[in-house]
Amino acid sequence: MGRGPDEMSTPARLAAPGEGIGRDELALATRNHGLPLEALRHDLTPPGLHYVLTHYDIPYVPDDTAWRLTLGGRVRTPLTLTPADLRSLPAVTTRVTLECAGNGRALLTPRPVSQPWLVEAVGTAEWTGVPLRLLLAEAGPATTAVDVVFTGADHGVERGVEQDYRRSLPLDAALATEPEALVAYAMNGAPLPPQHGRPLRLVVPGWYGMAHVKWLTDITVQDTPFTGFQQTVAYRLRQDPGEEGEPVTRIAPRALVVPPGFPDFMSRTRIVRPGPVLLEGRAWSGRAPVTRVEVSTDGGGTWAEAEPAPETGHRWAWRGWHHTWTAVPGRHVLCARATDAGGHTQPLDQPWNRGGFANNVVQRVEVLCAEEKS
Amino acid sequence: MGRGPDEMSTPARLAAPGEGIGRDELALATRNHGLPLEALRHDLTPPGLHYVLTHYDIPYVPDDTAWRLTLGGRVRTPLTLTPADLRSLPAVTTRVTLECAGNGRALLTPRPVSQPWLVEAVGTAEWTGVPLRLLLAEAGPATTAVDVVFTGADHGVERGVEQDYRRSLPLDAALATEPEALVAYAMNGAPLPPQHGRPLRLVVPGWYGMAHVKWLTDITVQDTPFTGFQQTVAYRLRQDPGEEGEPVTRIAPRALVVPPGFPDFMSRTRIVRPGPVLLEGRAWSGRAPVTRVEVSTDGGGTWAEAEPAPETGHRWAWRGWHHTWTAVPGRHVLCARATDAGGHTQPLDQPWNRGGFANNVVQRVEVLCAEEKS
Repeated sequence: MGRGPDEMSTPARLAAPGEGIGRDELALATRNHGLPLEALRHDLTPPGLHYVLTHYDIPYVPDDTAWRLTLGGRVRTPLTLTPADLRSLPAVTTRVTLECAGNGRALLTPRPVSQPWLVEAVGTAEWTGVPLRLLLAEAGPATTAVDVVFTGADHGVERGVEQDYRRSLPLDAALATEPEALVAYAMNGAPLPPQHGRPLRLVVPGWYGMAHVKWLTDITVQDTPFTGFQQTVAYRLRQDPGEEGEPVTRIAPRALVVPPGFPDFMSRTRIVRPGPVLLEGRAWSGRAPVTRVEVSTDGGGTWAEAEPAPETGHRWAWRGWHHTWTAVPGRHVLCARATDAGGHTQPLDQPWNRGGFANNVVQRVEVLCAEEKS
Repeated sequence: MGRGPDEMSTPARLAAPGEGIGRDELALATRNHGLPLEALRHDLTPPGLHYVLTHYDIPYVPDDTAWRLTLGGRVRTPLTLTPADLRSLPAVTTRVTLECAGNGRALLTPRPVSQPWLVEAVGTAEWTGVPLRLLLAEAGPATTAVDVVFTGADHGVERGVEQDYRRSLPLDAALATEPEALVAYAMNGAPLPPQHGRPLRLVVPGWYGMAHVKWLTDITVQDTPFTGFQQTVAYRLRQDPGEEGEPVTRIAPRALVVPPGFPDFMSRTRIVRPGPVLLEGRAWSGRAPVTRVEVSTDGGGTWAEAEPAPETGHRWAWRGWHHTWTAVPGRHVLCARATDAGGHTQPLDQPWNRGGFANNVVQRVEVLCAEEKS
């Protein structure tokens, strides 16, 4: 308590040196959730293991018959669609790896104070819906159109600004076929779970999660650039607070290791036995297909090539990989590094910005190799 | 790094005064997850919104045909059962509110360093399975039997002790009909999700979550008391580390409010408009039915009676309640307090113990009531 109206919604800030995770960050960490890394073994992440980040409350929609999606603005024919209307149109299903733009934020120094992800804000699902470009084609955007704005039903305050969650795509991205954005109503063959956008959400393969607007209520075509909070204040790459900054868009390459062996409850350090240890994981990039994964068992000092899984044809989903490590007693730090067809790879030093976005520094997994107690 | 074998798995400890949440606690908070409180609106919690706490890794069981549940020890006829065997037996479905014994831990002063829950480690589901007492009756416990020990497939190290997760029930609790323990294979009518115990778990209505052993592989009847780590080291109520302590068993009464209005992203403070505001929530107790819920809008200074929802016949599930509050501009702290038929209620001051268990201090929800900006 003791906080007045002006103090209740505070500006973005960086944690002081040595400052532990605060109650506010913890309140976000207990309600949002990450992928437990052992669940990287699933090709398709079950909904309760897929990462979730919601800015405000999850809307309560036990019955979607009253839900309406409007499509208007600078179009020839405004549309009003029900979830049932969308389900009656030809469906497309796309397997997509989704990652939060803030993944890895809590590993940064200094730490931007916000949702404190380590590396687990990721998941892969099959999303079924209607291509956005077909809905836009039916509405007929004006020739002067530049941006398409998506509004969710989640409502809140952020840094003093009351808002419905709202993001835009450039018109050419909204009309593209590869990646092809969807207005989705199903996840892994079932209706969207509440936390993933029931009844309707946007899915934009290859883009960080902030673009995939959940609980979608409105699509508006504009002939001026969208300047809403989540587009021009949040989700920008900035070194200094006064900068305009670059927008956060496509997912940078990343590989994650399934932590081998078994964990210590509190430290989460892994224990393995001496001998051959299967290292396996997933790698993805929203920019270009992953072409190479390397593994290090000495904290990034030396690297070995991992064996990528065969191509599956799912361009927008993660790719499996594996490598056999012969573990010897002692302490080790495992790392993995993805490179995509565009030559983008992962840094060993943190790519820092004030929002803690698009941080794809290589993962470090602490492992103790020890004989079984006899 | 810099941690040797002896330092990797450390003893339980309390946080120092003012010590923020550490990296180890955060690693638990990002993989385990709580119920976002707005999801208290759902009678049955969807799996991805139900709380999850796993001590070690979630086992990967894409196919349960090789899974075996053994029932042995001091019995006349040892049994070996497949999940299909269990599904072929007469099924019982029970609606159960499950709460983690460590719920509320991060609110304690000093704070026990472990999974840092605030108040959200709860959920309600319908569990379908076979009554444990029928399986025990078929096996025929010895007349000298005292404890029934349940082993899960999750394996790890905790405070230096390598273990499969293992807990026991006294024989009379294992054979009881009210509450009736189940060996469950379905949650809300679908196969158990991986994080809730696929393919088999124990459900013990009324008991804190540590008793509901997930990924169940073995049931052993003993004629001596079970003294495993999770029974005699962890999950005890102690003021001093050297004490034997009381075991953690049944769920203490608790009421939670659905936070009204909408949130500020970072502080999670709630904003409401002046006028009538519906306060609603859930209340439960694993000891006796909830008979009374009170609400305070001044931080526990004064209390009003809430209206409980009609009895539903689901004795082991939470009970809804509501109350209309006339909000006036300013800052307010909302609280709710449950009382059960046994006269148990919730304290305003923290019930502290070294493990941070069974903490049912009343919830506090900070609300700012303000006119809409014009």
